[in-house]
Amino acid sequence: MLVCRYTDAGRYGYGRIDSGSGGTHLSPVRYDTAARSWVPAGGPSRPLSDVTLLAPAEPTKIVCLALNWAAGDRPTGGPLPRAADSAVLLKPSTSLIGPDSAVVHPGPDWELRHEAELAVVIGVRCSRVSAARAPDVIAGYTAANDITAYARRTPQNADRQPVWAKHFDGCTPLGPWLATGLDPADVVLSCRVDGELRQQAGTRDLVVPVADVVALVSEHMTLLPGDVVLTGTPPGSGPLPAGSRVEVSATGIGVLRTTVDAPSRPGERRTAAALSTSLDGKGRCHR
Amino acid sequence: MLVCRYTDAGRYGYGRIDSGSGGTHLSPVRYDTAARSWVPAGGPSRPLSDVTLLAPAEPTKIVCLALNWAAGDRPTGGPLPRAADSAVLLKPSTSLIGPDSAVVHPGPDWELRHEAELAVVIGVRCSRVSAARAPDVIAGYTAANDITAYARRTPQNADRQPVWAKHFDGCTPLGPWLATGLDPADVVLSCRVDGELRQQAGTRDLVVPVADVVALVSEHMTLLPGDVVLTGTPPGSGPLPAGSRVEVSATGIGVLRTTVDAPSRPGERRTAAALSTSLDGKGRCHR
Repeated sequence: MLVCRYTDAGRYGYGRIDSGSGGTHLSPVRYDTAARSWVPAGGPSRPLSDVTLLAPAEPTKIVCLALNWAAGDRPTGGPLPRAADSAVLLKPSTSLIGPDSAVVHPGPDWELRHEAELAVVIGVRCSRVSAARAPDVIAGYTAANDITAYARRTPQNADRQPVWAKHFDGCTPLGPWLATGLDPADVVLSCRVDGELRQQAGTRDLVVPVADVVALVSEHMTLLPGDVVLTGTPPGSGPLPAGSRVEVSATGIGVLRTTVDAPSRPGERRTAAALSTSLDGKGRCHR
Repeated sequence: MLVCRYTDAGRYGYGRIDSGSGGTHLSPVRYDTAARSWVPAGGPSRPLSDVTLLAPAEPTKIVCLALNWAAGDRPTGGPLPRAADSAVLLKPSTSLIGPDSAVVHPGPDWELRHEAELAVVIGVRCSRVSAARAPDVIAGYTAANDITAYARRTPQNADRQPVWAKHFDGCTPLGPWLATGLDPADVVLSCRVDGELRQQAGTRDLVVPVADVVALVSEHMTLLPGDVVLTGTPPGSGPLPAGSRVEVSATGIGVLRTTVDAPSRPGERRTAAALSTSLDGKGRCHR
């Protein structure tokens, strides 16, 4: 099943996508945490073209596992990396953008790079999940571009990731929708920039397989419905100059297209997409 | 003004705290983003002792600035650290706990350490805020304990922060309430463990002053109402074994008390405090 998140006339929801002779339609759904599946949410089905697609998750956190792709074949016989050896960091929810959206290049001091990844969206509150039970806490899989900002290389700086690499608005395109019932060990990820193939690899080459990534992350923090886990990028990450068009595709899911807009002019405010919160005690984080 | 966040019989809100001859009471308030101040929210005032205090913020992100305290006197004449030189990371919202709460020690593989910090709670959506305008985007100041988990030292590991250091449930006690109208350059922070003074310093010794921290962070990402910025800890961070009682105090704010509970027994589930989200498209993050 494919499940998108959409907005239409100020309303927000998730929808099951069905293609038939009458075209592609969506029917409202919600994730039932007891049934651990997407169920009808009521409301009419409508043409997919009538709505705007959004990033298919509303995370309280985006957890990124780094250094998780064997450059060649997957090492055989060796132990999985220990928790203390993995590289992990969080990206803010303000970094999320949906499919067919633009990220604004943060400016001439930065060099952006694409990182095609398979993303997991969590369906139920969970902690210390075993790898065997991980599929039970996953609401769906989608494609992500874990766009990373490197400091533009100068004679003074080394080629290392700066501390602000993964925070800027729009640096996490996610989508175009969730796929359920996918074997996360059998997905081929590709990344094309202006049509040129830059990354291509199968998730069976992940050092820590997807189910083990969920186990590892949930060992260290409670995961909540909507939380996103990015599972690592294959070799080939490269530059994304302003004006480029980048496509991340994942077999069984679809193609996530993003454009890189030129930096803002001084005084121009272009910030994170429609996000608002308020200090009224109701604890809402609308997105 | 002091503003707490509280819960009472399944309801959540913020309240102004007033002490008088009749004892300490709270009156419901909300943050008015247009007026940039806390305003009455309606509802009767009641004794503070009738409610349970919560962490006084509902962040979409908790941003931590590290390496921000001059060990001795504040360097004079030198430039502020550049953005690229600062150390910054995010903690998840599942790490938050309120005043007079317990953090569960994550287990014998870890050594916890206290880090007393001054925390900023953002009031309005903002980006690229100048240091001069920073007070306009701040809803209040509070005390934080940026508890950090180091891998227990062995002959094999170095004394460095592991990647999972700042993610575990409960590792960010915050409170006991917000203070408004505070001069953030004139706060004395102290930390006591089982009564013993471990940290004590004034925020005028911060390398990057609080207003500049907000400017620096908002230069790199949009901040939303409720977001929390931790501004760095003074020298003296030390161990917090299971069973210890830690107090972070900040002049003009109050005392934030936390106990460290023994690790969970195998099979026992003790996860983040009352947090829930759902994939229903409404984008709520109740806390």
